[in-house]
Order: sequence, then structure tokens, then C-alpha cells
Amino acid sequence: TRVIRAPRGSQLNCKSWLTEAPYRMLQNNLDAEVAENPQSLVVYGGIGRAARNWECYDQILESLRQLEDDESLLIQSGKPVGVFKTHENAPRVLIANSNLVPKWGNWEHFNELDRKGLFMYGQMTAGSWIYIGSQGIVQGTFETFVEAGRQHYGNDLSGKWILTAGLGGMGGAQPLAATLAGACSLTVECKQSSIDFRLRTRYVDKQAKDIDDALALIAHHTGKKEAVSIALLGNAAEVLPELVKRARAGGPKPDLVTDQTSAHDLIHGYLPAGWSVAKWQAAMADASQHETLTAEAARSCAVHVQAMLDFQALGIPTVDYGNNIRQVAFDQGVQNAFDFPGFVPAYIRPLFCEGKGPFRWVALSGDPEDIYKTDAKIKELFPENKHTHRWLDMARERISFQGLPARICWLGLGERHKAGLAFNEMVRKGELKAPIVIGRDHLDTGSVASPNRETEAMKDGTDAVSDWPLLNALLNTAGGATWVSLHHGGGVGMGYSQHSGVVIVCDGSEAADQRIARVLWNDPASGVMRHADAGYEQAIAAAKRHGLKLPMVR
Amino acid sequence: TRVIRAPRGSQLNCKSWLTEAPYRMLQNNLDAEVAENPQSLVVYGGIGRAARNWECYDQILESLRQLEDDESLLIQSGKPVGVFKTHENAPRVLIANSNLVPKWGNWEHFNELDRKGLFMYGQMTAGSWIYIGSQGIVQGTFETFVEAGRQHYGNDLSGKWILTAGLGGMGGAQPLAATLAGACSLTVECKQSSIDFRLRTRYVDKQAKDIDDALALIAHHTGKKEAVSIALLGNAAEVLPELVKRARAGGPKPDLVTDQTSAHDLIHGYLPAGWSVAKWQAAMADASQHETLTAEAARSCAVHVQAMLDFQALGIPTVDYGNNIRQVAFDQGVQNAFDFPGFVPAYIRPLFCEGKGPFRWVALSGDPEDIYKTDAKIKELFPENKHTHRWLDMARERISFQGLPARICWLGLGERHKAGLAFNEMVRKGELKAPIVIGRDHLDTGSVASPNRETEAMKDGTDAVSDWPLLNALLNTAGGATWVSLHHGGGVGMGYSQHSGVVIVCDGSEAADQRIARVLWNDPASGVMRHADAGYEQAIAAAKRHGLKLPMVR
Ligand SMILES: NC(=O)c1ccc[n+]([C@@H]2O[C@H](COP(=O)([O-])OP(=O)(O)OC[C@H]3O[C@@H](n4cnc5c(N)ncnc54)[C@H](O)[C@@H]3O)[C@@H](O)[C@H]2O)c1
Ligand SMILES: NC(=O)c1ccc[n+]([C@@H]2O[C@H](COP(=O)([O-])OP(=O)(O)OC[C@H]3O[C@@H](n4cnc5c(N)ncnc54)[C@H](O)[C@@H]3O)[C@@H](O)[C@H]2O)c1
Repeated sequence: TRVIRAPRGSQLNCKSWLTEAPYRMLQNNLDAEVAENPQSLVVYGGIGRAARNWECYDQILESLRQLEDDESLLIQSGKPVGVFKTHENAPRVLIANSNLVPKWGNWEHFNELDRKGLFMYGQMTAGSWIYIGSQGIVQGTFETFVEAGRQHYGNDLSGKWILTAGLGGMGGAQPLAATLAGACSLTVECKQSSIDFRLRTRYVDKQAKDIDDALALIAHHTGKKEAVSIALLGNAAEVLPELVKRARAGGPKPDLVTDQTSAHDLIHGYLPAGWSVAKWQAAMADASQHETLTAEAARSCAVHVQAMLDFQALGIPTVDYGNNIRQVAFDQGVQNAFDFPGFVPAYIRPLFCEGKGPFRWVALSGDPEDIYKTDAKIKELFPENKHTHRWLDMARERISFQGLPARICWLGLGERHKAGLAFNEMVRKGELKAPIVIGRDHLDTGSVASPNRETEAMKDGTDAVSDWPLLNALLNTAGGATWVSLHHGGGVGMGYSQHSGVVIVCDGSEAADQRIARVLWNDPASGVMRHADAGYEQAIAAAKRHGLKLPMVR
Repeated sequence: TRVIRAPRGSQLNCKSWLTEAPYRMLQNNLDAEVAENPQSLVVYGGIGRAARNWECYDQILESLRQLEDDESLLIQSGKPVGVFKTHENAPRVLIANSNLVPKWGNWEHFNELDRKGLFMYGQMTAGSWIYIGSQGIVQGTFETFVEAGRQHYGNDLSGKWILTAGLGGMGGAQPLAATLAGACSLTVECKQSSIDFRLRTRYVDKQAKDIDDALALIAHHTGKKEAVSIALLGNAAEVLPELVKRARAGGPKPDLVTDQTSAHDLIHGYLPAGWSVAKWQAAMADASQHETLTAEAARSCAVHVQAMLDFQALGIPTVDYGNNIRQVAFDQGVQNAFDFPGFVPAYIRPLFCEGKGPFRWVALSGDPEDIYKTDAKIKELFPENKHTHRWLDMARERISFQGLPARICWLGLGERHKAGLAFNEMVRKGELKAPIVIGRDHLDTGSVASPNRETEAMKDGTDAVSDWPLLNALLNTAGGATWVSLHHGGGVGMGYSQHSGVVIVCDGSEAADQRIARVLWNDPASGVMRHADAGYEQAIAAAKRHGLKLPMVR
């Protein structure tokens, strides 16, 4: 078994920081603190890998150690396939992972190639070496809740409460994100073990004994405007209808309703109403029961969605969090299942229209102090951005680093390059112990085409047009990012998305200033462009405010 | 109606030659001499367009006139969507055309977007502004025949003859290409009008009166080692079986057999045996007869393929030229229809393994003399490359320029950058009247994933892996090409291919020398890399010979 940990400190293993950065970040992606299954090179998201196999992994590191500052290393689905002469302002690494000609862009063909060792699933930040652990999902959920607060409650969630379900791998971030956003939350979860895990890691504050207790706790803490998170053991398909009944009868009403049970997977993801967890687990393990299980789970999803629709009818903002539960209910005959929107069109797209997205950075020194200093710098740069201040303070307090110390916060066009230039200056002045690497998720404003998630229901119907992420990758390559990636599949699977990633190194040099100013401006600007082109007024206004040159937008 | 003709001469309309070049080439693509239907902005290949609509076209030209030499213009399916700050060594134009997320990568979705004005079909060189008219297909067919001669006949086709069928839009290039390759040819064509057109334009030399006359002419000219092309009016499904019978009985045998009837389209493309052309055309025009027509055409294709298999059994090299006739015959029950190979695996792939492909260039001056001087330069640079000398001489004599004077000839890794640097020096020294633009087809060694054509039957089964063209585009962007494009669809249609294009300008500057040296080396080298990675010994040997750094190839 391999134990991988990125080198720390200011000593170079490669010929410059531009190659040292991918060298450390690849290793960091497979740090046991970061990766879900480092022995299989799996970073996260099912089978999202950092390299195709150990031989490729070793050779990537070796190639990076040798790479000159006017060369570029090409990675093809996790395999280092070539080193070519480019120039100083070109990327040091160019990555293409999991891409298939559309007619063959499905799991069957992927699996066939994968089994033969000819391919790799890159997910989003796994194969592009900029995954930073669970801070990302907490922050994404936080931004979603904050944006909901902005839209519905005058940017103030204090005294409000969010009703949701599911405390699994991703869903477990909900109570913490709600707390950070200033809201109370009630999360229904059917497995005691999932609740226990989240209590232990302080992602959720308290467990209620029953519905009455839960509502009493909610009343108490919302009354005192305390952002406390409550878990309730139960089945969402039973608890939500009961809460609707009470709300209709004058009982307490939630201020936002969503859900993160795994309704996308009706065998392993959703407990049917009336079933015990033991019965459920037995049925999961027994293929002969899958048909019944699926049918029962789907029926319960329909009940669950009907309760969500009922909340919506009571005037409560209600959204799907990307778990496909609307589709399941619709297939069960709930004709208006899609009356409530997905979270991207509802809350994330307005941010994308401003070029806002999951900006993240990592301290290559390995020293947490470097991140704390950059936290302070962000506050100093954006004094008016109170919710980011709150996020940074609470993230420092509540979220432990995994692997190299890292931070994520959503910044928009006009902010990202400022942060990058400031970090680069800190490196130049010796305020940090080593360079900083700046990247982002592929789920970002200009970098993804994904009709079931990020580009669901685009205003002009161009959900499936993937020219945009390709242009984004070409533009970031042209601008001089340190590494650029183009992936297929990602979070929604083979056939369903194309997306690009970008990472840039702040090594303190003046040359880096130039590149940072270009790349961290162009990258979010390309998202504003994409949304302006689709006709979003907010993006058109943002483009004008920032003086973007968009020839066909008047 | 618009009449478009690219500006000629040495006067700039834009701020530099790097922007003047796309400015002229876009217009040249829509020159009435070049484009199939300039009024609809259609350049070639069905609906392959140069710009999405006239408004976009005008704005692209306007944006190019304004573009600075540290800016890049982004084109999204024929629409100019943004201008961004990059740097001197970055491309001036970045293009993404017709790309769709795989699940939606089909004609239905394309048409829906296209109808709404939201999309455009870019073909290969239509939307990337480097189409040069029919010289390309003549040259491609010539290379195919030459390579066949190399493999089977010691690089000498004199005294040999090629048997084929179809004198349509593409197929009409066959007799001329055979002549240029030094072989006699007999082409069976069922429409007298198609034969007349090719006689008139000197693409075919003579028409035979009947089979006996045809064989007599072939015997005469092969005997004298004269490369003369013969057309024969008839149905291939009748003529070929008769020729098989005679060959078996000791009659003359062809030295290569192929076919370019339009067997891919059984309604408009293939005349059933026993039918008159008049009956065929009536059936085409009458939907109620389509079923019968299709069935009869398919049956005749099976007979046709059986004759080709019979020739193969007689030891004669036989290939499919990308018209799907093997599949049609197979579906009719000819179980061994795929016994003869497609032309790419048979003849083009060995060239691709050497990084050889359709290198082309255009004289921005508009002066044919500039091309003749570059023709001479190519001969001077590659004195040993006799077949290219023959091609250049005969192309000059037999092929008229369409639009701006242009030349195509297949060059490989190690040759292309030499040609580029030499042209750039000629511009620098004032030997040419204006800069030269160098490009290529997307159908090239490292730039295409197309499982039914260019990447059919790859040795390791990676036909559908499109990481390669994406890496090619990223690498050419990193290297500093003048414009780079990423397309979907191309010659085989939506869902079936992804490919990238590259164009670079020789403006005579030292900076251009640097960029040319990188891009015209890296671009073909990426094709050698792709084929070496797939396990082709020839590519591995080429990589070693050229000192490529391919980390996993030992
Ligand atoms: N679109 C996005 O960006 C995005 C982000 C995060 C999660 N998601 C989706 O959210 C869902 C959850 O993700 P995850 O990683 O947390 O999944 P998971 O399977 O780890 O967790 C699901 C949890 O729901 C619980 N559960 C199942 N049925 C229940 C029921 N009837 N009542 C109460 N609890 C029930 C399970 O016990 C489990 O703890 C998935 O469908 C995922 O795709 C989407
Ligand atoms: N793979 C490649 O790169 C490539 C390149 C060129 C052409 N092609 C394929 O070659 C085929 C021909 O292309 P095209 O543009 O010339 O098509 P076309 O339709 O313009 O020409 C086809 C010709 O075949 C003749 N024909 C039809 N049936 C016949 C028969 N039974 N006997 C004799 N002649 C017959 C027609 O009269 C016509 O002149 C197409 O299927 C095309 O896809 C492939």
C-alpha cells in the first residue's frame, strides 16, 4: 500500500514553482486525508481518478520533475503522453480526460475502455488535480442558502429555518452550511448512523426526539435568532406530509424546502415509506427484491415531492437539489412535479451571471498560517462583502483542512484577479512561506455544459451547447494558466456534461502578475459572456458594468 | 445578393497580418469560386458554414478590423461572442463550432438549435476558414493511390490500372488523382452527364464505348505506361461482375479496386442494376417508391461488394472509400463484406504514423506567382520527395485556383515546420508579395477522432477517444497558432466525430519564426504521439527517429 502526502515547505523538487505546483497538487489529491480511496487512485465521486494507474502516476511525477519552463506536458485520461516545446506564458500541463465522440459517449463504451486500462474517469477536480476535500460541498451549499436568503429574505436568514432531508456524503453538509448562512435547519434522515457521524464531526448540532421536539427546538432557536441545526430520525416521505398538515393547520412553516436524499438511485438511495432500514438494506442486497424496492421507493418519492409542492403552494420557496426526485415523481404521475425549480436556475445562475463561482486556493507550503493570512487578505480586499467574511471566519473555526491547507470562497468577475494579484504580491514580499495555487471547480460560470444541472433550462434553450466550455479552455490556455483541463462526464456521468478546469500559480514573479491578471479576469468573464449571450439581463448588465467586449451584445 | 471576394495585395485592412489573415480567409471561404452556396454562407459539405448569419459575418469582419495584437476573438458556432486580452504569442482567433454534450449530440437536437438561429454546422474547414476548393479532394485521393502503389507495387504505378466507380462531386476526382499518381484508371459511371462534366474539365481523359473498348484502351495505355483515365457508362453492379468473370477466365485484372458511388444514401446515391437512370430519377422524386428503390439499391450493392470480394480473392488490393458500401452489403447478408478494409486503415494510417497529412497554404497577396514560388521552394527543400514534385507540377498544370491562390501537399513531421520557416523567410526577404497562411484539414494525423473514418479500427480499440483532438487544440493554442478551432460532426455528421483545426501566419517576423517552429512541429508530432500510444510500430519508430518525448512509449 502506498501512503501519499504532498511535499511541504519552500524546497523545490521540480525545476520551478510552475511545475512544482502540479507535482504537489497531484500528490495532494491522493493524500489519505483528501482522497476517498487512494489505493485505487480514486479521489472522489465514485471512480474519479487522479491518474490512470500507478505506472502513469509515477511517470507524471517524473515528467514534472524534468519539465522545463518552456515545455508542456500532455495528460490523456490520466496518462502522461507527451512533452512538447511551448513557451513561458503557455500552460505547463494540458489535460484531456474521459472524452468520447458523442455517439460513443456512454457508460458501456467507457467501461469497455476502462477495463482494458485505456481510459480513466476524471470527474471534475480529481483528474485535474485541484480537489480540496469536503470544504467544497459545504461552501457550495452555503452559497445556495445565502442566495436563497438574498432573493427571498432581504439577505438575512436569521430567525429562518430550512427543511430538508438526507445526511449522506454530500447532504451531510446541509446543516453546517445552513448554520454558516445564519439559518436554523431541520434535516430528516432515516439512518441513525448517518446522524451520529454528523453529530460527532459537529456538522449538525442536535438530534430531536420526535416531530414535536423538533418543532419546539426550531421555534426556540429561530425565536432567539440562533443558527442551530437539528436532525430528526425519520422518513422524509412520512415526516414532510405530516409537517404540511401541521403547517396548513396553522403550525410552523419552514422558510425554504429542499432535499438531498439519493432519489437518483432508487435501489441504494431512498428508503420507502413504512419500511425499516433493516428491511431496506436486506432488499438492497437481494437482487430479486430490486423491482419491488424500486417501485416502492418511487411511490414514496412521489409522496415526498407532493409534500414539497404543497409547501410551495403555501408560498414557501422550494427547490430540487440535483437528486432527480422531480423526475421520479413525474414518472409516477405527479404531473406538476417540475413546478419547483432546480437549485441552479433558482439560486446559482444569478451568481453565474456575475461571474461568481467556486474560487479556491491552496498553500503549497503546507502551513495553515499561509491560508489564514490569505483569509485576512480577502477580507481586506473586499470589506463590503460581509457574507464572505462570515464564511471565512466560520470556515476557519468549523472546517478542518484536509491535505495541504486550502480555502474556497465564491468570488466574481472583478474580484478573482484582485485576489490573485494580492496573493502573488504576498508571495513576492515573502509574507507567505511558499507560492499559492489558485483554481476552481469545473462547476463554474463559464466552464460547463450540463443540461441536467449547471445549464438546466437556459433562457435561450442552449443547455446542451458545449462550444462554451471548449472556448473557456482555449481562452485559459491562451491566457497562460498553469494547467488547463477538458473533461467529459463529471458529476452527472458519461454523456451528460463537458467541462473545463483551470489552475494558476502565484509564484511571486512579475510574469505571474501578467498571467494572473489575464486568466483570473478572462475565466469568470467568459461565464458572464455565456450568460449574456443566452439573454440574461443580469449578465448583460454585468458585462456592461465591467466593460466586456461582447460584439453581438448591445 | 452579396458578392464576396477577399481583398488582395499588400495593403492592410486590419491592424496586422495576424488579423488580416483570418479577415481575408473568412471572405475567401465565401468567394463564389470557392463556396458551394455563398448566399447561404455555405462553403461545402452539405450545410458547412463560414459564419452563422450575415449579421455575425459582418461583425466578425468588424471585430477583426479592430482587434489588437494582444487580444483574441472568440467565435461560437459562427458568432463572434467575445474579445479578450491575451498576449502576442496567443492565437488571435479561437473557434468552437457545432459542439454538443454527447447525449444531445445528434441531428435532431442540432436542427432544433439551428432552426432557431442558435447554432451552425462548421464542417471541417468551412467554419474554420481554411477551405481551398476541390484541390483538397484531388490531393487526398492522389495520396491514397500513391500509398497503395507504395505498399503493393514498389512505389511505381506506371503500367498499373485502378478500377472504380462514381464520377460525382468527390468521386470525380478519382481519374485525375489516378493520372497524377501515374496509373491508368477505369471508372464506371451510370450518368452520361457526370462523365461529360469530367471530360469537359479534363478530370477524365476518354470515354470508352463499351467494356471491350474499355479493356482494349486499358491494355493499350498500360502497355505504353501512359497514365490515361477512361470513363465507362454503365452500372457498377453489372460491370464489375462481368469484369470478374473475364479476369477469372484469364482476362485483364485491375491492380487496385475501390468505389465512390454514393452507397451511403440508397435513395439518391446508388442506381439499382437493371434500372435506367430515368426510372431511377423518377423513383427518387416519388416517396412512394423509396422503399422499393432502397431495397433494390441495397441488393445491387451486395452484388457490387461481392464482385469486389471476388477481386480481392484474386489477390487484388481492394478498399472501401468511405461510402459505407460494406455495411449495406453486410446487412444484405454478405457476411464477409468487411474482409476488405477501409481506405484509412489501409493507406492513410501509415502516413498518419509519420505525421503526414494535408498541409496547405494560401497566398494572401492573391498573386499566383507567390504560390509558384512556394511550389519551387518545396521542391528545393525536399529534393528526394519525387512524388510531391510530380504532384506540384501536375497540380500547377491541371488544377485551377479557386479564390486566393492556394496549394496543398501532404507533408510529415519534420517537413512541415521546415516549409513554414522557409515561407516565412521568403516573406521577410520580400520574395513574396504578401504573407502566406498555412493550415490543414481537420482530417489529419493528430486532430480527429472519428470511429467510422479517420480512427476506424485503431490497433488498441481507442477509435472513439476524443481526448486526442482536444489535446491537439490545446497544444496548438499553447504553441501560438494564429487561429485554432474545435468542431463536432464534420464529414461524418453529428455524433460521429470531433476534430480540431489550426492555421498559422507567416508574416515574415522573427516572432513568427518561433511560433512556426513550435506549432508546425507539435501539430504533426501530436499525431505521431497518438498513433504511437495506440501501439503502431511505425509511429513508435517515427517518434524515436524524431526524438519525441513520449513518457510512456519505450
Ligand atoms: N447537483 C449537485 O450539485 C448535488 C450536490 C450534492 C448532492 N447532490 C445529490 O444529492 C443526493 C444526495 O447525495 P449524497 O452524496 O449525500 O448521497 P448519500 O447516498 O450519501 O446520502 C443520502 C442519504 O439520504 C438518506 N435517506 C434515504 N432515503 C431517505 C428517506 N426516505 N428519508 C430520509 N432520509 C433518507 C440516506 O440514509 C442517506 O444518508 C444525491 O442524489 C446527489 O446526486 C447533488
Ligand atoms: N471517406 C472519405 O473521405 C470520402 C471522401 C470522398 C467521398 N466519400 C464517399 O464517396 C461517395 C461518393 O461521394 P460523391 O460526393 O462523389 O457523391 P455523388 O453522389 O456526388 O456521386 C456519386 C456518383 O455515383 C454514380 N452512381 C450511382 N450509382 C451508380 C452505379 N450503380 N454505378 C455507377 N455509378 C453510379 C452517380 O451517378 C454519381 O455520379 C459518398 O458515399 C461519399 O460519402 C468519402
